[in-house]
Amino acid sequence: MAQLTLYTAKVCPFAHRTEIALAEVGADFKRYEIDLANKPEWYASRVNPASKVPALAYGGPDVPPEEASPESTKIPESLVLLQLIPELFPDASTLIPKDPIVLAKARLFIESFSSTFVPAYAALFSGQEGAEKLKAAMKTVIQARQQEGNRKYAVSDEFTIADAAVVPFIARAELLFSKDLTKAGGSRGSEFIAEAKVDASLKPFWDYYALLKERESFKSTWSPDAVVVAIKKILEK
Amino acid sequence: MAQLTLYTAKVCPFAHRTEIALAEVGADFKRYEIDLANKPEWYASRVNPASKVPALAYGGPDVPPEEASPESTKIPESLVLLQLIPELFPDASTLIPKDPIVLAKARLFIESFSSTFVPAYAALFSGQEGAEKLKAAMKTVIQARQQEGNRKYAVSDEFTIADAAVVPFIARAELLFSKDLTKAGGSRGSEFIAEAKVDASLKPFWDYYALLKERESFKSTWSPDAVVVAIKKILEK
Repeated sequence: MAQLTLYTAKVCPFAHRTEIALAEVGADFKRYEIDLANKPEWYASRVNPASKVPALAYGGPDVPPEEASPESTKIPESLVLLQLIPELFPDASTLIPKDPIVLAKARLFIESFSSTFVPAYAALFSGQEGAEKLKAAMKTVIQARQQEGNRKYAVSDEFTIADAAVVPFIARAELLFSKDLTKAGGSRGSEFIAEAKVDASLKPFWDYYALLKERESFKSTWSPDAVVVAIKKILEK
Repeated sequence: MAQLTLYTAKVCPFAHRTEIALAEVGADFKRYEIDLANKPEWYASRVNPASKVPALAYGGPDVPPEEASPESTKIPESLVLLQLIPELFPDASTLIPKDPIVLAKARLFIESFSSTFVPAYAALFSGQEGAEKLKAAMKTVIQARQQEGNRKYAVSDEFTIADAAVVPFIARAELLFSKDLTKAGGSRGSEFIAEAKVDASLKPFWDYYALLKERESFKSTWSPDAVVVAIKKILEK
């Protein structure tokens, strides 16, 4: 297998998706933490012109991450990487369902989450009126799982790309809002979480998240303390 | 193979992607034209709650499209279908590159086109200031192909999902703007196309499009006269 170097950041939910995928397939890779509040100068020029994480350097010589070689292929975009990683290690994980119809449902689940939960999470974090939208997004997750007959995970009894794509956002929403670590300040975040936790209509959402939290690939890649430190640094800027 | 029914509309570039994919794999399917200016009442309730095209009904009993069965699986979203269709017919086409890295590049090409060309096309159609953005999007296509060493198609010497995803939009931009069939009216569209056609820096873009236009799966699914009629109907509403 070609060398793999992942440029990532513990705080970033998009990057977290790719770390979960690498853990699921058991890949041997170099991990390089990018400080998003103070990105190294070489990152945009040598790795990702958009200067975002995640990015994967694939192949080329086995060099230190800071010296990323022009000979490696640089691949950005969390959803592209979330599919590429299990495709590089076929049969190493259940991330890509074998049944094309189940795979299509996993992609639709991600599409729906990306257009509901992700913007609502960003809105509430920024201090806009995101609470109602976030609640609606949680219900969308519940309904999507119901449509599939409430399998163990999002669209299947197996852990797939759908689950890996959503758990980083749910974990950050719970962590940051319950501590009111938002740009807006105030207690809107913690009030939202407190209400959402006792809202009976949202129980299937929290049950699903409780299962995701137990997944080894999540536990081994989730660093809540580091996320809190990084967010505080971003909020202070 | 399970029955396949595609709900589509000749005017719609998103739906056109799936028709190209079905032609590439040589699938046997029922095609049902949805009049977007006058959608049938049963469409949202029986096929796609979002009431958009394309949507594919997969499996279930072999019924007329108007009587879509609750037993078939309904799948929306052009980019989900563009991947699902070749996955249902493995080895029937070159749409999904065998090399995972080339496949990742095809997905990145689509992602880039979707965030540059598609919104610029929509803006110019709506009468907003889209011309400069559309020109920049064309240059993005040129640069992306250069990065891959100017292979025959977008990311490979084979015709892939990247090519199928973009040609419906390029064809409509050329057709509608050159005829000034836009919401804004005026001659901004035809002026843009006339300038872009003689702009030497954009020649590689038109050369690429000339090749795409010759693809049999495009020719057999492209109905410019029907697109013009449908757009005029939409503009009159």
